[in-house]
Amino acid sequence: MKNIFGNSVSITLFGESHGEAVGVVLDGLAPGLEVDTDYIASQLSLRRPFGKISTARVEADNFKILSGVFEGKTTGTPICIIIPNENTNSRDYSETRAIARPGHADYTAFSKYHGYEDYRGGGHFSGRITAALVAAGAIALTALKGKGIYIGTHILRCAKISDKDFSENLKEEIDLLNLMPFAVLDSSAGEEMKKAIEKATLDRDSVGGVLETAVLGMPSGVGEPWFDTLEGVLSHILFSIPAIKGVEFGLGFRTADGFGSEVNDAFRIENGKIVTKTNNNGGINGGISNGMPIIFRCAVKPTPSIFKAQKTVDFIKCKNSVLELSGRHDPAVVHRARVVVDSVTALALCDVLAGRYGTDYFKE
Amino acid sequence: MKNIFGNSVSITLFGESHGEAVGVVLDGLAPGLEVDTDYIASQLSLRRPFGKISTARVEADNFKILSGVFEGKTTGTPICIIIPNENTNSRDYSETRAIARPGHADYTAFSKYHGYEDYRGGGHFSGRITAALVAAGAIALTALKGKGIYIGTHILRCAKISDKDFSENLKEEIDLLNLMPFAVLDSSAGEEMKKAIEKATLDRDSVGGVLETAVLGMPSGVGEPWFDTLEGVLSHILFSIPAIKGVEFGLGFRTADGFGSEVNDAFRIENGKIVTKTNNNGGINGGISNGMPIIFRCAVKPTPSIFKAQKTVDFIKCKNSVLELSGRHDPAVVHRARVVVDSVTALALCDVLAGRYGTDYFKE
Amino acid sequence: MKNIFGNSVSITLFGESHGEAVGVVLDGLAPGLEVDTDYIASQLSLRRPFGKISTARVEADNFKILSGVFEGKTTGTPICIIIPNENTNSRDYSETRAIARPGHADYTAFSKYHGYEDYRGGGHFSGRITAALVAAGAIALTALKGKGIYIGTHILRCAKISDKDFSENLKEEIDLLNLMPFAVLDSSAGEEMKKAIEKATLDRDSVGGVLETAVLGMPSGVGEPWFDTLEGVLSHILFSIPAIKGVEFGLGFRTADGFGSEVNDAFRIENGKIVTKTNNNGGINGGISNGMPIIFRCAVKPTPSIFKAQKTVDFIKCKNSVLELSGRHDPAVVHRARVVVDSVTALALCDVLAGRYGTDYFKE
Amino acid sequence: MKNIFGNSVSITLFGESHGEAVGVVLDGLAPGLEVDTDYIASQLSLRRPFGKISTARVEADNFKILSGVFEGKTTGTPICIIIPNENTNSRDYSETRAIARPGHADYTAFSKYHGYEDYRGGGHFSGRITAALVAAGAIALTALKGKGIYIGTHILRCAKISDKDFSENLKEEIDLLNLMPFAVLDSSAGEEMKKAIEKATLDRDSVGGVLETAVLGMPSGVGEPWFDTLEGVLSHILFSIPAIKGVEFGLGFRTADGFGSEVNDAFRIENGKIVTKTNNNGGINGGISNGMPIIFRCAVKPTPSIFKAQKTVDFIKCKNSVLELSGRHDPAVVHRARVVVDSVTALALCDVLAGRYGTDYFKE
Repeated sequence: MKNIFGNSVSITLFGESHGEAVGVVLDGLAPGLEVDTDYIASQLSLRRPFGKISTARVEADNFKILSGVFEGKTTGTPICIIIPNENTNSRDYSETRAIARPGHADYTAFSKYHGYEDYRGGGHFSGRITAALVAAGAIALTALKGKGIYIGTHILRCAKISDKDFSENLKEEIDLLNLMPFAVLDSSAGEEMKKAIEKATLDRDSVGGVLETAVLGMPSGVGEPWFDTLEGVLSHILFSIPAIKGVEFGLGFRTADGFGSEVNDAFRIENGKIVTKTNNNGGINGGISNGMPIIFRCAVKPTPSIFKAQKTVDFIKCKNSVLELSGRHDPAVVHRARVVVDSVTALALCDVLAGRYGTDYFKE
Repeated sequence: MKNIFGNSVSITLFGESHGEAVGVVLDGLAPGLEVDTDYIASQLSLRRPFGKISTARVEADNFKILSGVFEGKTTGTPICIIIPNENTNSRDYSETRAIARPGHADYTAFSKYHGYEDYRGGGHFSGRITAALVAAGAIALTALKGKGIYIGTHILRCAKISDKDFSENLKEEIDLLNLMPFAVLDSSAGEEMKKAIEKATLDRDSVGGVLETAVLGMPSGVGEPWFDTLEGVLSHILFSIPAIKGVEFGLGFRTADGFGSEVNDAFRIENGKIVTKTNNNGGINGGISNGMPIIFRCAVKPTPSIFKAQKTVDFIKCKNSVLELSGRHDPAVVHRARVVVDSVTALALCDVLAGRYGTDYFKE
Repeated sequence: MKNIFGNSVSITLFGESHGEAVGVVLDGLAPGLEVDTDYIASQLSLRRPFGKISTARVEADNFKILSGVFEGKTTGTPICIIIPNENTNSRDYSETRAIARPGHADYTAFSKYHGYEDYRGGGHFSGRITAALVAAGAIALTALKGKGIYIGTHILRCAKISDKDFSENLKEEIDLLNLMPFAVLDSSAGEEMKKAIEKATLDRDSVGGVLETAVLGMPSGVGEPWFDTLEGVLSHILFSIPAIKGVEFGLGFRTADGFGSEVNDAFRIENGKIVTKTNNNGGINGGISNGMPIIFRCAVKPTPSIFKAQKTVDFIKCKNSVLELSGRHDPAVVHRARVVVDSVTALALCDVLAGRYGTDYFKE
Repeated sequence: MKNIFGNSVSITLFGESHGEAVGVVLDGLAPGLEVDTDYIASQLSLRRPFGKISTARVEADNFKILSGVFEGKTTGTPICIIIPNENTNSRDYSETRAIARPGHADYTAFSKYHGYEDYRGGGHFSGRITAALVAAGAIALTALKGKGIYIGTHILRCAKISDKDFSENLKEEIDLLNLMPFAVLDSSAGEEMKKAIEKATLDRDSVGGVLETAVLGMPSGVGEPWFDTLEGVLSHILFSIPAIKGVEFGLGFRTADGFGSEVNDAFRIENGKIVTKTNNNGGINGGISNGMPIIFRCAVKPTPSIFKAQKTVDFIKCKNSVLELSGRHDPAVVHRARVVVDSVTALALCDVLAGRYGTDYFKE
């Protein structure tokens, strides 16, 4: 289904970095939900570059809602949101267009679209498209909050520096993270990370990181045993985020080295409710939520656009070449990707919840 | 879509561990492909338990093809394969049914299906269902081979013991692995792993591992920039395999600690063809294949069924309980999961290739 | 999605006329629904040929439920039902295989499947496959009854003879029709129709007809304004039934000749409920149910298999030919198609209702 | 999937009559296809009201392409087209909003969206949304022409007046029809129809009609035997067009009264090609194209918005009421629906063709 995700609640994505606009159609959400444009704007601002650790291209992200919202509330019909591209650099890309940036999609796009792709600024592959996901995600996050489901993500690791782990006070931590432009639980680790990013900038290089996400309040019994497991659905959409190269749930790859007696989460009754003592399975058993927080981590590779000279090819002339990038590029995207992770997680969970409980679920 | 995966080539899965049969409907494959029942049988045998390192439940897997194959070839219409359940243990499960096995889906199944689930032997959540995936996967693997696409998986790690990495001789290694019941590149590491599994059995415990897969011969230009990225589609189906808790492509989580200048794969011309010098991105840029081998790893958690006493709950009586398992259980599934990984990889790739090149692609 | 229909409740169809079995996987129905095998058998008997007005091939339709039913109730996981082919005629079809039967799919199957299709007895195109739809439909009909939704179909017209129209006593008429092997409201019209069918047999010819269906008890507010209109979803599945060449809702084609003032259905309050005085729109406005009975009609063409000599081609030798059929063929299928119409209608409505109200809807 | 149609080539529809804009995202078309904005504009003009036989609301339909087109050609990534709403009547709808217009979706929309729907001018149910389908359809029609596939529709019947039937010179007739604002084969019949429409206007009433469509050049072997039959896919999307209440293929409902010997289309070899002598099956056998023109007819009911006083209800106060419409309304939509039929037919056929032959089919 290409640029469409979801069955009950679906999103259709469109746009190119230097075209008229990027945008999204969000369909299937219940009617009657408040649409808070200030919240959408504030979520978009979390994705925007800032300070010395980001690209110099800063856009206002003046989104417009074209449909599906009436008198401040969702109508239940498709919500189209567009974000016009305003600060596009008018320089000529055609000369360097065939010099493949290593780690980027220039060559694979050419291979797929036979040279007809809009190659300016990464075109349809640009991280800019994720702004549309964030706008739609803001509405999805609000819908989930209405059902007591909260999502928060922190930069668990960046440039080899680690943040603290989530604690028991998950709700407070999530609330705090959601206000932070650079989302860490340990602010001194955050300062070190920022310094390391600045250092990478000076080195004409880039760094990556790991994002860790918690979903609090997910009801048990949601997900499917085969194919549409919660892990499968979430990883499917998470891997759409440019630069993500790994997704793991609960202990993830660390489960591989444990014994069953260590990794198994013992069930217990607490306050009349079934819980697990540990959460090594990340809130999911057999593809289905067990009522514990859903925990997952995404590996974010270092931004492929670096200023160091790189060996590459001209894929039209089919000969070796060297690339020396100029222009505006992020030395790290892990902090900006954070809100995109929250957004797509919310969109995917709205889809599975509406599939499970019906289209009016979020309204009730 | 629950128990259905794929758009152009799709599979529908059904069955329970102790029901009449498990099975699969494979639809959308080109007409005219040879169906080699011996190969299907041999793939099924790779999934079957063996020796001291597996469960004592061994089934013949006498599969039957009910439709879609005529005169030894695919007709182009749906192929239904069933594998009757023959060696089901007739003991009464009803007494212990509400004692949730930690790490298992007993409680989440109850939460989702309200107690109507077939709880005998894990029911629809049983690893037994993967036999149907292997049978369908055998046909998909054959279709891919016809297009020069080869898939192989080795046990990269098990019980903290590591196998060798894939070498340059990928084709030879794949061919070799596909014949091995316990698939490792370094046989002495393999022996150690088996010993560690046997030790876990004696300890009434279980171990996990990591599977690494290589896909050779994938044409460039296949996959989508958003949502149906190759990573997204593959991870979606891989997470269906019980016990898989993490999926990473190329360097995966190790990219997080690298610099862009280290992780980027330099493009080069070699023998008139565009290749990359390293393959840290695992053959995928921007969600689309770049012609290099597709490389990914799956974390397999230790089998949750262990014989040690475990704290748990009775989810019907809603009270704390203790579980002491008896019966037949695997001390590790990583070696058996290997062929399932190959199978679902083949099924997903058949789907994206048929979507890209049309339904007759595999016949041409 | 080829042989798959439905999003929330889906069916996957497989089988060929002379293969091992025909069958269906029904997925997404709520857990805990009674599965009445006698009712399935009785629905299958309504599809079976009988008396002088049908083909001589009579099969017992000894269906088997392979999965998804436990202790007589749906588990919520996929239900696979197979119907083995028992009475297949063993004669050699290969000699006449390329002589296209006019009005049949022989040539188009060859065109699509390049000669690899199972051509024996119509293969995957055979009306025999509808037995699997009837078996799955029986479960869907039961699920709907549990929610007060009733479906009934009568032969409105056959061989130019017309039945009475539905009256106000729709529930009684539906109950009656559902017991009749030859479903008409006016039994004398029914007798005439049967005579006309017998006459067509003697003339080595065949006749067609029109089926009219009523769905009683559909809640208002179900369906979509675009694409997944109730009309669109129902017609999509109805046109799968071999021989159906037209579908109309409410007054259908007769609306074309009316004035707006005649065709519009005036709304009224009756017993505190919103109803329409007429039902020219067949219970659907803007693609969405309005609470009135859903009424539609299907045109069933005369069976293409007739014993008269027919001009045709040999599509392999690519030359003109003449076809003189022998064997077992129906002089009419309209009376047998009736239960298939009910079945696919039920399956499609289960899908839209589960999509609207969630997967537990039928259980509540 | 609600407002989304298609698997390989898909459209996502959005917008309300009095919102910011209506629009569509068209995804999956091959890269490199010419996008002729003049042709899109001219197709939109065929949908626009004109003369005395249409509503007084005339809009310029100044569409904007936001994405997916670069240097005048498709990029292969999603094409978003929006048509801003310019001539929206600013009067207050809130007073009369609960007075259900008979034959309209006011009440069913309320039933589905619980009163949150944008009720102004029909909202998301307005025929205005079809402008977006026409814009996307223009690109699809161009793609089909590139493969020698031509679509044309005439008003077969309007206000009880009949047009001529299609002749053997189908290509010429299609070309001619595609230039005509009021598409008939017999211009004198067309004049009579227009007079009848004007008469209906004077009578404060409305009229309906029948549209007949021919698709020339469709290759044989396209379509599926079950569910995604050509008839099923086409009818699914055709019933989305407001006012369509019946769809039939070939002889359609007239097959019901014929004998098999009359309805069957004899195959013949002509100029080395397999053809049928008659085309009573409308170019489709067993759900699959046979290479003959695809012929179908759609019943278009009289516009429900009439100026005569009508009995109805206030669905919020739940009491009987009377409706006397004022404002701008069409006395007939059959002539305007014509280009919408062509458009959705083209979109659906692009989808099935790209599914069959791959995403590059239209480019080759």
